[in-house]
Amino acid sequence: MLEIFKVSKKEQIRISEKSLRRSVMAFFEKMGEISEDAAIATDTLVSSDLRGVESHGVSNMLRYYLDGYMKEKIKARPNWHIVNETPGTATLDADNGLVVFLGKHAMQIAIDKAKKVGVGAVTVFNSEHSGAIGHHAMSAVQQDMIGLVMTSASARVVPTFASKALLGTNPIAVAAPTRNEAPFLYDAATCSVAMNKIWIARRLGSMLGPGWICDNQGLPIEESILAPESDDDFLLLPLGATREQGSHKGFGLAMIVDIMSALLAGSIPDMLSSVDNKDRKQSHHFTAYNIEAFTELDTFKDNMDRMLKMIRETKPISSEERVLYPGLLEHEEKQARQENGIPFHKDVVTWFKEMTGHLSIPDIEIL
Amino acid sequence: MLEIFKVSKKEQIRISEKSLRRSVMAFFEKMGEISEDAAIATDTLVSSDLRGVESHGVSNMLRYYLDGYMKEKIKARPNWHIVNETPGTATLDADNGLVVFLGKHAMQIAIDKAKKVGVGAVTVFNSEHSGAIGHHAMSAVQQDMIGLVMTSASARVVPTFASKALLGTNPIAVAAPTRNEAPFLYDAATCSVAMNKIWIARRLGSMLGPGWICDNQGLPIEESILAPESDDDFLLLPLGATREQGSHKGFGLAMIVDIMSALLAGSIPDMLSSVDNKDRKQSHHFTAYNIEAFTELDTFKDNMDRMLKMIRETKPISSEERVLYPGLLEHEEKQARQENGIPFHKDVVTWFKEMTGHLSIPDIEIL
Repeated sequence: MLEIFKVSKKEQIRISEKSLRRSVMAFFEKMGEISEDAAIATDTLVSSDLRGVESHGVSNMLRYYLDGYMKEKIKARPNWHIVNETPGTATLDADNGLVVFLGKHAMQIAIDKAKKVGVGAVTVFNSEHSGAIGHHAMSAVQQDMIGLVMTSASARVVPTFASKALLGTNPIAVAAPTRNEAPFLYDAATCSVAMNKIWIARRLGSMLGPGWICDNQGLPIEESILAPESDDDFLLLPLGATREQGSHKGFGLAMIVDIMSALLAGSIPDMLSSVDNKDRKQSHHFTAYNIEAFTELDTFKDNMDRMLKMIRETKPISSEERVLYPGLLEHEEKQARQENGIPFHKDVVTWFKEMTGHLSIPDIEIL
Repeated sequence: MLEIFKVSKKEQIRISEKSLRRSVMAFFEKMGEISEDAAIATDTLVSSDLRGVESHGVSNMLRYYLDGYMKEKIKARPNWHIVNETPGTATLDADNGLVVFLGKHAMQIAIDKAKKVGVGAVTVFNSEHSGAIGHHAMSAVQQDMIGLVMTSASARVVPTFASKALLGTNPIAVAAPTRNEAPFLYDAATCSVAMNKIWIARRLGSMLGPGWICDNQGLPIEESILAPESDDDFLLLPLGATREQGSHKGFGLAMIVDIMSALLAGSIPDMLSSVDNKDRKQSHHFTAYNIEAFTELDTFKDNMDRMLKMIRETKPISSEERVLYPGLLEHEEKQARQENGIPFHKDVVTWFKEMTGHLSIPDIEIL
């Protein structure tokens, strides 16, 4: 994560992981989720905070979920079920449940299928927010597989040359196991910058870079600006920002996510929701590749380690200290935060304390 | 394709599709390929020329393949075979054969598996060039499936913050079927610009855009420049160009391609070839998703048409005439070129005539 997204030291308050887990677990149970799912949801969110991915951690997501449960947009104890199934595939109706925990179930179905036929693919529709999809991709890694996860999200991104938003930030995550290196974990929106990062920049008063957003008519804003006050005042650009810099590639990747998640589940991407007069829902895709079906697992892991080490040890350009591969910094951050606590912005701590008081659930413990 | 990559009208010579197919077919047979594979290879290359993707068409590829056959880097009539197999997966040793035709066989194996278990994934190692991988993804579309293809190529791309090239241009292609709209076909390198496009720009004397390439120490060249004279004088940047603009995303996507293609096949990406003192080889990945395993095919196709139509009919920004989805322009170009012939640069025609004369194979016919 770029420095500008980080909470400055003087506004940081450190929270113990254990107390955070206890509070978040109690939150989900209070919302009506069964203990097993509350525990999974807690792990998804707290793992993001541990990895330094605040954009998808407790601070951003919990308020959003609370609102969703209150408005009955998110259904607790969803009656999720498989609507179509073959030896290698399944399609799940999430019944408006949070993929924050359903993601683990969906990926496990994919993994179980991959154990039998080498590869398993699961699509999920009628679903609510997933948290960081990289966390669900990591479920596959824990069982020595490669995990691929995608999310078709609400339309906020403008296709190349278009004057309105039709695509979601539509992230793609891929995780792959290693032997001794930190696991490979790629988890990124297909737009210039994820929506959650704009929210954090707004809270922190950080500047956005050129080409990160466009105005409401689709024109790229090519200078650095403060994050707009309201989400209605801007739209997002695809990865690449402009056609000359490759925005058609980011745009196409976002469409792939819509196709693999929403359309392949028999559902629709957000751009068609208003046409059909339907509620905005998310759709998701999970594929697990069983490495042993393709090659020797040991060979794979050894080669992963060799590749990641080579990248990590490559001489950086003079302005930088090191070369990082996807997942390395987050892995190191996790180790540090498990030891020293999780830094929260003071405003988040204030909100959290009000929320736990209001819901009569255990408070977080400041270190 | 950007205007600058197109052959200017006064240097164009139009060739008939039929005569081009006849010459290219004869070329591959002369190189020793069996007729069936020569026909597939011909279709792969000529399809690129028809779609306006000159970078992967006859003009660039045939000289390169001729050199490869002559130096025995490319093996004609390769003894390609499956080394590992499960109901949903296979790993193929390409025996140094061209994936220009092996790609069709690999994708068909994936499709046949997807017919049985819903999804099929095939990795290929020890292989030579594939042509445009989008063409192989389209094999799946012709059988009402979604096709995903990736290629782990020679190291020419510099990871974010690194001072040397470790990654290939590593393209990703995804194709999905429609009812009446032109099929969705995404086929793009995970770097700012594909190597083949630099070659075309050099031939045409076109300028490269800022952030397309970097110097040999990994420093991005942020102004417009003429294509460097030699391939040794520059390196490529990942999609996103700089860290602030998202180059870590392009870099990560390139690594995913290495993992899914080379490592999953039990092989190594190019960055490890020199360490292991091995010849540079390509690896490939093919996944076919059987739409009917997940949902109703009719629903899927209807939703694809609605989505693509909505994008196509969205009001463009004032500087542009229309909004294009991946595959649309190439589909239109194909129809036009089948009617009016394929425009070749005059130097290509000269080279082609020398080559056909030298090999005693049928010449191309100028319209």
